[in-house]
Amino acid sequence: MSTIGILGGGQLARMLALAAVPLGARVVALDPSASACAGSVAQVLQADYDDQEALARFAEQIDVATFDFENVPAASAALLAGQRPVFPAPEALATSQDRLSEKSLFTEVGLATPTFATIDSLDALHQALEHTGLPAVLKTRRLGYDGKGQARLHRRADASTAWQALGSGRVPLILEAFVPFQRELSVIAVRGRDGDFRTWPLTRNWHDHGILALSVAPAEVSATLAEQAIGHARAIAERLDYVGVFALELFEHDGRLLGNEMAPRVHNSGHWTIEGAATSQFENHLRAVLGLPLGDTRLVEPCAMLNFIGQMPSRNKALAIPGLHWHDYGKRARPGRKLGHATVRAPDPARLQQRLAQAAQGLDHPAHAILAQSPAG
Amino acid sequence: MSTIGILGGGQLARMLALAAVPLGARVVALDPSASACAGSVAQVLQADYDDQEALARFAEQIDVATFDFENVPAASAALLAGQRPVFPAPEALATSQDRLSEKSLFTEVGLATPTFATIDSLDALHQALEHTGLPAVLKTRRLGYDGKGQARLHRRADASTAWQALGSGRVPLILEAFVPFQRELSVIAVRGRDGDFRTWPLTRNWHDHGILALSVAPAEVSATLAEQAIGHARAIAERLDYVGVFALELFEHDGRLLGNEMAPRVHNSGHWTIEGAATSQFENHLRAVLGLPLGDTRLVEPCAMLNFIGQMPSRNKALAIPGLHWHDYGKRARPGRKLGHATVRAPDPARLQQRLAQAAQGLDHPAHAILAQSPAG
Repeated sequence: MSTIGILGGGQLARMLALAAVPLGARVVALDPSASACAGSVAQVLQADYDDQEALARFAEQIDVATFDFENVPAASAALLAGQRPVFPAPEALATSQDRLSEKSLFTEVGLATPTFATIDSLDALHQALEHTGLPAVLKTRRLGYDGKGQARLHRRADASTAWQALGSGRVPLILEAFVPFQRELSVIAVRGRDGDFRTWPLTRNWHDHGILALSVAPAEVSATLAEQAIGHARAIAERLDYVGVFALELFEHDGRLLGNEMAPRVHNSGHWTIEGAATSQFENHLRAVLGLPLGDTRLVEPCAMLNFIGQMPSRNKALAIPGLHWHDYGKRARPGRKLGHATVRAPDPARLQQRLAQAAQGLDHPAHAILAQSPAG
Repeated sequence: MSTIGILGGGQLARMLALAAVPLGARVVALDPSASACAGSVAQVLQADYDDQEALARFAEQIDVATFDFENVPAASAALLAGQRPVFPAPEALATSQDRLSEKSLFTEVGLATPTFATIDSLDALHQALEHTGLPAVLKTRRLGYDGKGQARLHRRADASTAWQALGSGRVPLILEAFVPFQRELSVIAVRGRDGDFRTWPLTRNWHDHGILALSVAPAEVSATLAEQAIGHARAIAERLDYVGVFALELFEHDGRLLGNEMAPRVHNSGHWTIEGAATSQFENHLRAVLGLPLGDTRLVEPCAMLNFIGQMPSRNKALAIPGLHWHDYGKRARPGRKLGHATVRAPDPARLQQRLAQAAQGLDHPAHAILAQSPAG
């Protein structure tokens, strides 16, 4: 039986472990936390990501390694790769860990990005604002997620506050123009060890306080735009010789696509694929890293995904909503923490809108306010 | 978090445990075997089903109990029911454990059965053959499954051999007329604690050497026949005040339905619901026993299910077949043992037939010979 090692034992590892069981594979996760939520369905080795001795023991237990979390120290990924196959490869991980190399890659493959500049001093920040204009977003180049490591600048006078908030240059920073995009989209893509490349139908995403709140698939986009998005994802995957699932997050701005960032792992905006696609992102990630043939990524039925942040709604109330599927990550509630999600599925887009509205309202979910402003589609 | 205790730790418990995780529930199984395959995803308490001390410890760890296996001693189910809610209730389990009380129940709800007679002597067997005619099947009233505890009689001269093969009256026996049925069908049904009753689309089944080999859903039956089948399942569920999933196995003979047997648990012929229905039989069984609202049982896409008996085919070969989903139970190979199954799903019945034929042939599965004789539908 194949054993897949996962660096990180959060909900992504948990859902990967659930997908591994029917495939006749098992998961061992390495996580610093004693209460990593993958622990209900997988063995968890509790250790820090830079604990070399633990990484060596981890490597001995597994056939292949992958990630639930991209901010693993590059040295740890490299150490592991010395002992076992690691997918995606540490080089691909490194590229997506740094917003500068990520944007350079986007540019190389012809994917436009918001105007950006690296920032190493407060003076440089002031100068860069000339190029990006306002508003703009100052971000740490590394280790950011869910809106963490970011500060928005609305006026030139915000520069020094933002500079200080992100550590006054103690970590590398990047300034990005804020794009008044019309829509946020993501491509969930997978590439096999043999180079086979597939994408799921495009997903439209809505964030709330910097954290994904709602995804709807398929996104209503023109065939041209969808082809462009898929083409960019394919070019990135091939450039990186990528193996496994990744997400490419895009802004749609005046009919053009801009590259926001990529996540080198299964992605929150692809959770709907469990119910809505012929093969889920979790199963295909496992198939890819195990060197098995990839599964069909076609849409089976349209879906909407609602994230539960900070607290779970009533399970009883939720399960009474037609077409709703419940995903409790078994985590302790904490403000701002992703505790679970629900996928609402329907036989057609019209009924999906009805069910999504019913779920958003019935569960008092931020999607209710989001949909009031911009109907899904 | 709710903990569901399951008596039996086989593949049904394993698939129930997989469905429990997203619902925020967990499973503890009690099984006599040290290598019960539910152990990969659930805690397993190794003990005999009649170990009263172990049952008491088991009861302390769980909120509610259910079954992966119906041949649990009635006394053990009753003992457990004294400490925790048990679904289905021990009385319902007892009815379906005995082929005589099961057939009496069928008769009560207006479901015809093959002609039968209880047998307590070789003389009685000879007399009963006058009523049933030949061929006929002598069966143990209790503890039969997968063709075990059965002997077929083709000639009157087979009577004494069959009588001896089934223990010469040491266990209660029943003789049933062999019905030259056209089709075997099953209704997978679920009833909630609140009496909510639902069925999945009818399934057509094919057996090979007494073990289920192939199921196709939805079965192509007239609306009238489907309504009759569902009506019988509903009447049985209500008569037993049944809670949870059960299967009602039927023969279709000259346009009429005959009751074969019922299985008081999730059922092999309902495995296709994981991929093919809005809610799987496993999730709805858990929803029922936990007192949660039941999920939608509608068909999402037509499916065929191939059982793997005695040995698993090549995983690599199987996963290359379009629309094929792999379910390895993680069991050691042994002749006649159910080791796993594959579900083939397609957007429409025509493509399902193509894919099923491809899978049956490519995996050298008994379904290949079955389909050559009687095309699915």
